[in-house]
Amino acid sequence: MPNLKAVVDVLETLYPLRYAEHWDEPGLIVGDLSAPVRRIVFAADPTSAIIDKAIEAGADLLVTHHPLLFRAVHEVSGLGFRGDIVRRLNQNRCALWVGHTNADASVRGVGQAAADLFGLVDQHPLVPIDDPNAPGPVGLGRIGVLPEPMRLGDFARRVFTQVNDYGMVTAQGIQVCGELDTLVSSVAVLPGSGDSLFDEVRAAGVDVYVTSDLRHHPATDAIEQARYEARMRAQGIALGQGSAGDGQVRPFLINTPHAAIESMWFNYAIEDVPEAVERATGERPEVTWLHDTTDPWVMSITQ
Amino acid sequence: MPNLKAVVDVLETLYPLRYAEHWDEPGLIVGDLSAPVRRIVFAADPTSAIIDKAIEAGADLLVTHHPLLFRAVHEVSGLGFRGDIVRRLNQNRCALWVGHTNADASVRGVGQAAADLFGLVDQHPLVPIDDPNAPGPVGLGRIGVLPEPMRLGDFARRVFTQVNDYGMVTAQGIQVCGELDTLVSSVAVLPGSGDSLFDEVRAAGVDVYVTSDLRHHPATDAIEQARYEARMRAQGIALGQGSAGDGQVRPFLINTPHAAIESMWFNYAIEDVPEAVERATGERPEVTWLHDTTDPWVMSITQ
Amino acid sequence: MPNLKAVVDVLETLYPLRYAEHWDEPGLIVGDLSAPVRRIVFAADPTSAIIDKAIEAGADLLVTHHPLLFRAVHEVSGLGFRGDIVRRLNQNRCALWVGHTNADASVRGVGQAAADLFGLVDQHPLVPIDDPNAPGPVGLGRIGVLPEPMRLGDFARRVFTQVNDYGMVTAQGIQVCGELDTLVSSVAVLPGSGDSLFDEVRAAGVDVYVTSDLRHHPATDAIEQARYEARMRAQGIALGQGSAGDGQVRPFLINTPHAAIESMWFNYAIEDVPEAVERATGERPEVTWLHDTTDPWVMSITQ
Amino acid sequence: MPNLKAVVDVLETLYPLRYAEHWDEPGLIVGDLSAPVRRIVFAADPTSAIIDKAIEAGADLLVTHHPLLFRAVHEVSGLGFRGDIVRRLNQNRCALWVGHTNADASVRGVGQAAADLFGLVDQHPLVPIDDPNAPGPVGLGRIGVLPEPMRLGDFARRVFTQVNDYGMVTAQGIQVCGELDTLVSSVAVLPGSGDSLFDEVRAAGVDVYVTSDLRHHPATDAIEQARYEARMRAQGIALGQGSAGDGQVRPFLINTPHAAIESMWFNYAIEDVPEAVERATGERPEVTWLHDTTDPWVMSITQ
Amino acid sequence: MPNLKAVVDVLETLYPLRYAEHWDEPGLIVGDLSAPVRRIVFAADPTSAIIDKAIEAGADLLVTHHPLLFRAVHEVSGLGFRGDIVRRLNQNRCALWVGHTNADASVRGVGQAAADLFGLVDQHPLVPIDDPNAPGPVGLGRIGVLPEPMRLGDFARRVFTQVNDYGMVTAQGIQVCGELDTLVSSVAVLPGSGDSLFDEVRAAGVDVYVTSDLRHHPATDAIEQARYEARMRAQGIALGQGSAGDGQVRPFLINTPHAAIESMWFNYAIEDVPEAVERATGERPEVTWLHDTTDPWVMSITQ
Amino acid sequence: MPNLKAVVDVLETLYPLRYAEHWDEPGLIVGDLSAPVRRIVFAADPTSAIIDKAIEAGADLLVTHHPLLFRAVHEVSGLGFRGDIVRRLNQNRCALWVGHTNADASVRGVGQAAADLFGLVDQHPLVPIDDPNAPGPVGLGRIGVLPEPMRLGDFARRVFTQVNDYGMVTAQGIQVCGELDTLVSSVAVLPGSGDSLFDEVRAAGVDVYVTSDLRHHPATDAIEQARYEARMRAQGIALGQGSAGDGQVRPFLINTPHAAIESMWFNYAIEDVPEAVERATGERPEVTWLHDTTDPWVMSITQ
Repeated sequence: MPNLKAVVDVLETLYPLRYAEHWDEPGLIVGDLSAPVRRIVFAADPTSAIIDKAIEAGADLLVTHHPLLFRAVHEVSGLGFRGDIVRRLNQNRCALWVGHTNADASVRGVGQAAADLFGLVDQHPLVPIDDPNAPGPVGLGRIGVLPEPMRLGDFARRVFTQVNDYGMVTAQGIQVCGELDTLVSSVAVLPGSGDSLFDEVRAAGVDVYVTSDLRHHPATDAIEQARYEARMRAQGIALGQGSAGDGQVRPFLINTPHAAIESMWFNYAIEDVPEAVERATGERPEVTWLHDTTDPWVMSITQ
Repeated sequence: MPNLKAVVDVLETLYPLRYAEHWDEPGLIVGDLSAPVRRIVFAADPTSAIIDKAIEAGADLLVTHHPLLFRAVHEVSGLGFRGDIVRRLNQNRCALWVGHTNADASVRGVGQAAADLFGLVDQHPLVPIDDPNAPGPVGLGRIGVLPEPMRLGDFARRVFTQVNDYGMVTAQGIQVCGELDTLVSSVAVLPGSGDSLFDEVRAAGVDVYVTSDLRHHPATDAIEQARYEARMRAQGIALGQGSAGDGQVRPFLINTPHAAIESMWFNYAIEDVPEAVERATGERPEVTWLHDTTDPWVMSITQ
Repeated sequence: MPNLKAVVDVLETLYPLRYAEHWDEPGLIVGDLSAPVRRIVFAADPTSAIIDKAIEAGADLLVTHHPLLFRAVHEVSGLGFRGDIVRRLNQNRCALWVGHTNADASVRGVGQAAADLFGLVDQHPLVPIDDPNAPGPVGLGRIGVLPEPMRLGDFARRVFTQVNDYGMVTAQGIQVCGELDTLVSSVAVLPGSGDSLFDEVRAAGVDVYVTSDLRHHPATDAIEQARYEARMRAQGIALGQGSAGDGQVRPFLINTPHAAIESMWFNYAIEDVPEAVERATGERPEVTWLHDTTDPWVMSITQ
Repeated sequence: MPNLKAVVDVLETLYPLRYAEHWDEPGLIVGDLSAPVRRIVFAADPTSAIIDKAIEAGADLLVTHHPLLFRAVHEVSGLGFRGDIVRRLNQNRCALWVGHTNADASVRGVGQAAADLFGLVDQHPLVPIDDPNAPGPVGLGRIGVLPEPMRLGDFARRVFTQVNDYGMVTAQGIQVCGELDTLVSSVAVLPGSGDSLFDEVRAAGVDVYVTSDLRHHPATDAIEQARYEARMRAQGIALGQGSAGDGQVRPFLINTPHAAIESMWFNYAIEDVPEAVERATGERPEVTWLHDTTDPWVMSITQ
Repeated sequence: MPNLKAVVDVLETLYPLRYAEHWDEPGLIVGDLSAPVRRIVFAADPTSAIIDKAIEAGADLLVTHHPLLFRAVHEVSGLGFRGDIVRRLNQNRCALWVGHTNADASVRGVGQAAADLFGLVDQHPLVPIDDPNAPGPVGLGRIGVLPEPMRLGDFARRVFTQVNDYGMVTAQGIQVCGELDTLVSSVAVLPGSGDSLFDEVRAAGVDVYVTSDLRHHPATDAIEQARYEARMRAQGIALGQGSAGDGQVRPFLINTPHAAIESMWFNYAIEDVPEAVERATGERPEVTWLHDTTDPWVMSITQ
Repeated sequence: MPNLKAVVDVLETLYPLRYAEHWDEPGLIVGDLSAPVRRIVFAADPTSAIIDKAIEAGADLLVTHHPLLFRAVHEVSGLGFRGDIVRRLNQNRCALWVGHTNADASVRGVGQAAADLFGLVDQHPLVPIDDPNAPGPVGLGRIGVLPEPMRLGDFARRVFTQVNDYGMVTAQGIQVCGELDTLVSSVAVLPGSGDSLFDEVRAAGVDVYVTSDLRHHPATDAIEQARYEARMRAQGIALGQGSAGDGQVRPFLINTPHAAIESMWFNYAIEDVPEAVERATGERPEVTWLHDTTDPWVMSITQ
């Protein structure tokens, strides 16, 4: 069986750490480099419940999308849940490797997985990273077009169905901002919190922005500016993305459950990781995907 | 008729600017101090649609909760929607006054209005401000208790009903995190984005936290830590808020539509403001509350 | 008639915003992009008196050199004179566009206008900006030489006459630091506050530095160092700009009224702007230069 | 004869170093603590010419108002004029002590000396420092009133005469901003660069601000705001300092030569220092005041 | 047997975490709060060799003076020795608690232990902390006096003997700076790196400073200033600590092995900790002190 | 005789100031540029005792390695030893030039001198600086190899002998960390405080690091990580510098007296400087090397 060091080398070839955002510290978090890896378990969040299931499943290595130690720590004791998880992983000889913004940016990573399943073609990254050796374009998010324009409402239903089918939609559901009957064609997808990339999305000139965790102020500001620009363009003043006369408001917004949309990546990872390990080491680890919803919401009340 | 200066003096007696957070700049944003104020219109957000309605309603003064110029600006031209709004307000002689975190903290302000309508008694601020001259306790958020303990799910339905009744619930609805059948008694309420006050809420030891704009990571981290502490307490180790043996997870979370919960304040303001103006100047302005939902979401898809 | 957006596009072709210093935010400050522009008024400062005159003159657009909102603002109400000016501009449908450090650096901008009128030849910028597409060298300030060396006192009188003739010398007058009978040839000109560019001026090795707003300490330090270096060079020790044996003190200093020297730019702008608008849109706006002195000083008492 | 250490102890009792602004480092700059002090020379600036004169006058100690090493240095060699001055002082056994913002703030210091000679009564500091042991109020600048109101133009002429008489007015002269015939009564005086204290002056509500080195933008902004507030007050809206109905613009501005106004202090220091040394040590040093103008300007051209 | 939580509570009563420097994060680093604690092992540094010995000794809890995670970490995997230590501690169910600057400052902590064993009386902290509830004065370092003055060389030999006897002197030995025959009486002791506290030591006016890790520049600067001040005092000029005429150089310096001097604390801790645990829980854990030298040096070559 | 300016020009050709670290300010510190230079004295530190000896030796110029004014100063008076040294240098007409990190990095500078005398071949800088015009590779520190591998203990004895022979070993002696019988071949040398360059040394993969002023924590952390990596490599896991299977711990550490190792440079400088001055000016100054030990330690007690 390959040891953990060999498997980590494979993971960081598929999802290179240098793709990570400067504030992010993905990679190996817990684990003995010399331990054998027979079974790899995939899950969105390293919650306490997920740790239990991974251990129960006999995992030698848990691969999650979300970090356990996003903020650096001075202790890993039982004073907090993070130290308790480190202890349980160590005592059950289960390693933890995190593919966060590095996995977002990679080929067949988080961004591409969502964009593919939403049916986007002619994809390129929203925030490109220059890597001439990558097997395809890499960078945060994906921009693409629908083969045929769709009504915004219909596209939102497709997003719901796909996230629901492959990932795990929570009680929170999906929210839409915009005119539901307008035809949309170009789309930006950023699985995860999307508040901070509105400038890039606006510069891309897309019709719709699909992301998560949008809050009142960034979303309201974006749609107000989009509506103002559309009104000016309708009056013949070119402002924002679009030519004079083009009165379409853009981008519209689709807000998705954070962990659910990111989990779409595992559709690819459960195939790509064992294959790459086998290619590199001659032995293929077993893999399991824990489909558990890890967004925290259990009930939603709407009118 | 009182002039704008006199009305602003009254508003800033009810909702003193010194209560504002250090990063906030509420108060008078647009307006001629010498202009007469006959009609005051209240609304949650100064969106373009709200400006149109206020002007149409003949407003001399628009009072909103959310800022127009939250980030300082170097221009107020038609290059953006904010400058366009300034121009339309000026050309239609309608002033704009913002009661933001100063109104949150005040007596009969945003925090108290929500807490009162949710039925909380024995209230005190979550982040107290020391003002011996205030007519009651002041500060961000409110902590209080329910006269009788309720199941979490029942309390969430009460929150929905009240926000819906008095404010304006958007398509986004209300989300709940926690065990729906557990009895809850103490509650912290923070209308508006609540991610940044988890430390204060945890220190308060309440059973439920009602706020808005909760994102995946802060909410997940909070509930994971809450569940870990409850598990340790159940084993007899006092950790977090609660005594050894008390295995109740706290706080549970209720996520509400941002503008809707904040609009509950206007129930009080449409009474308090004209009365205080009349007391100060001898003349009572007319008041209007624009109930329009200004959260951006128009559709929600849930299972 | 061209609309404001079309005129702004022309102004920002003549005086590109990317030439501005990083701390500066010139460009359109007030105005409706769709409004027609028939008359453009030019003035150094957007003071309250200038606004009155521009409105009285029927301006659709006021072009000033100095900013109205140099420091970003959170409000544009009548609490301060800036908000009052915004209101009066909006209510009188007069836009405001500021050409500040971008206009300083441009071809036929503020620096070149002063250098040309002082008779400097072989000009190049003091702080060059790289723009291969510009019609000539661009950057802050201008360095040039006098066709014939002049006595410092005579050159100072030329500066006074030119500023007075074309611009508007205030009661403050012009001050000179140096030996009045020494012949000078090379000159650096920086219209506006010049304290911060002494290093660049010293590196340029010029005989005279013409600028504004020089304060006691920077000016005294500069002349003390210049005198020390000249004394050392006279002793055969090469120090500063000049070869061993060259005992000339450099640079001498000429302090000019701030707004007056900058106004020399309008000699060019009142020709260049209407011509460029006509070339771009087929219609030529009327132009007016308000020669009013806007430096604040009204009396000077000297011995 | 007292040694330098004993004299420094006396100087720092009269002008305590703890009164200095946080960015200022006054006190002993050059000198052997054990050297005897027979003659003390006073001058505004430690320029090269002043050093020559002090040495020629046989000074054991030079006391200046302006610093030699305001910015900290890594070398005191002949690469610059400052190191050359250090060397000449050391080789001629002349110490240097600087009384800068500590002397500004002291009783019978720079601020009080100017205020006294301008005829102000009922003085108190503009920026008070709390020192219960001081022989009178201490702090930066002085606020006072004229026994009888005077026309602004007449008061400016008094300022000129006093500065000229006791200090040394340079070619730069004195500039006035305001309505020359308006009666003024309350005055703030800040010898030295006054741009940064406009907020304190405005809060003090004085009629005139006498200071130095005022630049175009701070002075223009101040007078524009003052004029706007006066206009509003004239309309019955209380804004700024003054009651509704009071239409007087305030503060007007008087700009004075920097070194000249600060030199007024030596009128007091040449009496106070030798007397205090004698009281402390039993021996009275000789004192000399070098009246040389050290502002850099030698010629002014006005209309 | 008490669980880890109960023992930690006792440790943090003896050595309160609030005494720690602001840059320090001592306390519980690894461990399950519910695990029983039968045996506590003490050692200076949590090196890999110490971990092995502690595990071999059957430790449930290792108490060290030096931190394992001084700089916060984003991972505790086998990529580095720290993560490997965390894993081995977890897998062997051994907790780690660090008493660093909190233990330095406490009553019967690191500073007091060294000062007591060097024979100092009339002790008080070098950097006092205000804690009215402490059983004695607390704060970093200790100042005290020798009952009888000793020659510097003799006192250095006493320091060597005591450190050697009770702690573990490494090959590095002890270094002395000063006149070996001078009598010394007052002493400051700061176990650990002492470069940063020279100001406090100078203010204390002690004859000798005993600390560790002194580097060339801080030590040379300190002794140069001390010698200059002594020379001036000998000439009758009071400078530094000492009266005019007192020509003694102070402070002299004694540099000790870092881990060795700090280990003197365990003389007290192996008594105080089990006693306090017994008092609090009724059960007394076994204790072991690992005397191993953990300074890294194994050979010293001197003349 | 050449004047000081001419000699400084030569020194800064041999040891260019642009090689200095960004935090360092070497070069001319005291001196009259026009003074003749007949005798140059070299010493490690500008201590008070060294100044006395240099003056006694008739020095016109003292060249030291360590700075006098490392931290910038606001005064050079007798309040401190630095000002006293400036005064004595000025009054005795002795200049001071400092070759600090610029001399470390230069060809035949401090790093190369130590590396040559320790017998290293195939040298290159540890932190290279790009200077195509230099006569050889330049940069901080030197990496090289021993012609034949040696036991660590034997190499340490060679270091001691060389430092002792050419420089001046203080009482502090030399300390070694590592297995004394292991064969070492590649060496990094950084004369001066070496705590901050461990990352570069690790990246270089050398067997030994020779430097000064190593403190407990950096040294312990380095050797712990080195030992962990060696242990993992011995198990077949490639970690750190070395291939899988290579179980050698690296780097070992040799700690040397700071001023002594840096003084090895003067072996070269007393030849190179007079020769270069003669080549540039036709006249050869006399040179003296003051071999005095300037590390502060006078006694070491070891077992």
